[in-house]
Amino acid sequence: MPREIHLNAFDMNCVGHIQHGLWTHPRDQSCRFNELKYWLNYARRLEAGLFDGIFLADVVGVYDVYGRSADAALRGAVQVPVNDPMLIVPAMAAVTANLGFGVTCNLVYEQPFLFARRMSTLDHLTGGRIAWNIVTGYLDSAARANGLAEQARHDDRYDLADEYMSLVYKLWEGSWDDGAVLQDRAAGVYADPSKVRAIHHRGAQYQVDAMHLCAPSPQRTPVLYQAGSSARGRRFAASHAECVFVNGQQKEGVRRIVDDIRAQAVQLGRRACDVKAFLGGTLVLGRTEKEAKEKFEDYRRYASSEAALVHAAASLGIDFAKYDLDEPVDTGKSQAIVSNIEAVTRSAGPQWTRRKLLEQMVLGSRQAPLIGTPASVADTLIDWCEDTGVDGFNLSRTVVPECIDDVIDLLVPVLQERGVYKTAYRQGTYREKLFGHARLPPSHVAAQYRSAS
Amino acid sequence: MPREIHLNAFDMNCVGHIQHGLWTHPRDQSCRFNELKYWLNYARRLEAGLFDGIFLADVVGVYDVYGRSADAALRGAVQVPVNDPMLIVPAMAAVTANLGFGVTCNLVYEQPFLFARRMSTLDHLTGGRIAWNIVTGYLDSAARANGLAEQARHDDRYDLADEYMSLVYKLWEGSWDDGAVLQDRAAGVYADPSKVRAIHHRGAQYQVDAMHLCAPSPQRTPVLYQAGSSARGRRFAASHAECVFVNGQQKEGVRRIVDDIRAQAVQLGRRACDVKAFLGGTLVLGRTEKEAKEKFEDYRRYASSEAALVHAAASLGIDFAKYDLDEPVDTGKSQAIVSNIEAVTRSAGPQWTRRKLLEQMVLGSRQAPLIGTPASVADTLIDWCEDTGVDGFNLSRTVVPECIDDVIDLLVPVLQERGVYKTAYRQGTYREKLFGHARLPPSHVAAQYRSAS
Repeated sequence: MPREIHLNAFDMNCVGHIQHGLWTHPRDQSCRFNELKYWLNYARRLEAGLFDGIFLADVVGVYDVYGRSADAALRGAVQVPVNDPMLIVPAMAAVTANLGFGVTCNLVYEQPFLFARRMSTLDHLTGGRIAWNIVTGYLDSAARANGLAEQARHDDRYDLADEYMSLVYKLWEGSWDDGAVLQDRAAGVYADPSKVRAIHHRGAQYQVDAMHLCAPSPQRTPVLYQAGSSARGRRFAASHAECVFVNGQQKEGVRRIVDDIRAQAVQLGRRACDVKAFLGGTLVLGRTEKEAKEKFEDYRRYASSEAALVHAAASLGIDFAKYDLDEPVDTGKSQAIVSNIEAVTRSAGPQWTRRKLLEQMVLGSRQAPLIGTPASVADTLIDWCEDTGVDGFNLSRTVVPECIDDVIDLLVPVLQERGVYKTAYRQGTYREKLFGHARLPPSHVAAQYRSAS
Repeated sequence: MPREIHLNAFDMNCVGHIQHGLWTHPRDQSCRFNELKYWLNYARRLEAGLFDGIFLADVVGVYDVYGRSADAALRGAVQVPVNDPMLIVPAMAAVTANLGFGVTCNLVYEQPFLFARRMSTLDHLTGGRIAWNIVTGYLDSAARANGLAEQARHDDRYDLADEYMSLVYKLWEGSWDDGAVLQDRAAGVYADPSKVRAIHHRGAQYQVDAMHLCAPSPQRTPVLYQAGSSARGRRFAASHAECVFVNGQQKEGVRRIVDDIRAQAVQLGRRACDVKAFLGGTLVLGRTEKEAKEKFEDYRRYASSEAALVHAAASLGIDFAKYDLDEPVDTGKSQAIVSNIEAVTRSAGPQWTRRKLLEQMVLGSRQAPLIGTPASVADTLIDWCEDTGVDGFNLSRTVVPECIDDVIDLLVPVLQERGVYKTAYRQGTYREKLFGHARLPPSHVAAQYRSAS
């Protein structure tokens, strides 16, 4: 029996997300990101297509490495302006019943006590449909926006993240017992104080003495996503993540990352199937190969390779603007500190140039799209799942909303025919839909923070 | 011509808000606060009644002064559990077009850069219907939850608040010029970088070097509410607040506070009419006096004076549980540090006892309700506006949703007949509806942070 393929829409509360420049396409509606109606319609469509979830990226700084200013990012709408991702979720939840919501939050700048309350509130309001994509950021511009001269070092951020996780687990899993809420009108007792307790956290970064402000939500801890693929990032994922988000154009590289995370998870006492992997992907679909290619050529006229380079410059920490087109790019610093973009450095070869990188930006991004008929794309997706062990895809948008409609109208029926895509949502919370259990399993690191009572 | 009376629903994302114990009433639905549908229906009703807004209170700690633990608060659902107030707004906005949303946020624990983004996001999504109730907190339990041993001193918190305001004004008013967003598809230019700039804030508490992440929202700065009535709080309000929230049972006390804030505002170059005042109120309405009294007696059977005392203990910083019923309460510390509850200390007299205080808790709160027919209550409200200079009321709930229905079905028509209540919403943003202008006026302290360009 073939494995089920999961699909998330990968998006962001902004104009240009991954495939840059496509906002200039006459049919693209991403400029409507400030409008509630845009997101309501989006969520309704995704649920009609039985998408597992919408996965919302975020950054809390701007891309100001390229040319040492944010000017190019502003001109090209390269993830700026960018609104808060969390605040579109309650509205989308109001018009859906099954769609999951993965929200990226950079824990470095979020007060953990209040962040935990936000997540619990969302989990309550959505009936247990919340996931958190745990990130620690990579932008000095975000650090400067939040009171620091520069961000902490890569591995130090993960140490902080480990402490942060232990703190929020205590609040989510340990502060309120199941059954603490009695809601006994006759006795006039809402909650049983003997089943609620303050947590006491004394760490290197955080000190908290308080009970969680929220009663237990359906999932308690949100479904945990993580996307780091550095060695330290994979170690973190093996410990905490239920879903990992992987990027890569080469199967063996993706397989290696996924296998490594699962192997480390098993070493920590978890099961390999406790970690689902989602691969980033971009699709351009047509009813015929010709139609797909024509659509791609149409889209490509609006894509911006320069905007893609602005994005890559910030990710890699390299100011490409200061190099001539064929001048070798000094990647020393980047190779040392940014290890989650190995794919790019490998594919560009040891001697990068701006020209080589620009040539890689096929559709306004270093992520090349899959172009084809529903049948051929379905084949490719199934092959990727079989060959790499990924469970599904985070599909970035090209021209919205038609790219979503194409997936729903063209691809989903084919995946269903092949028996690799659900024909109805499962009951229950997001975690139950993905894993079959409502709460984190006992083998997860969070379980130790549950109260013995 | 009589002045228009504004009405806000005063509520909180929790069970017991002001009138404690009433959640035990068989018809009360406040226990549904975790449900999105509860808030959607609530918002629809309020808009049907032409309420100006829903004003959402918040605390980020628990009431653990009474008996030196939070046990009584948990039993009585005295503002615990309490969910994040901001996250119900997008959903309520999705089902309304004119209702305003006042959200309480304690600035002490919110990273200003990310807070500013949240507010701008909400202002975008709601089409300019957001207000912020600026608070600095009063709970040591909140400080301990957020990494501090205890909270800063009262006046120091306002100094911090002044700095915080200058910082968020820079982001909201100064970082992006009008016209910065070009959205020029043909030229491929989304924003004009010459009209966007980083702000540079170097203060005692905050350092920020960053551009605001959001393009200008309809109101830029949200409508500003403030509720402090201490000398320092009034000074802060005179400088920043567009709406002040006042509590008090005695007209002369309320008048004095409102007059003082407006006089100080005028000294700062603002107009008296730039500050609208809202009085806290609780209504129990019946079609006849008899029906109203019976409803009050019915409600009163479910009210909890002890829960009210738990709330007051936290507000006053006095552990009433350690006093016998008729033992004089030592109010020394409280009188010194808590000046925004003068009304209570006055009405209880110089020699407080628990018994005296409990007797004041008429309906589960130190806020006594107005009880009567629509005609008599309308008279009283109009008198209050005329005698004290307040512009409207923040109406706390008794038994929801029927208390809202009573206002809409019984009181609003009478207020409309008297010509003191709108018969349709005005066009425009929340600020335009209240004041006739979309942006803060040039006389407001925020205006200095606008770019000269």
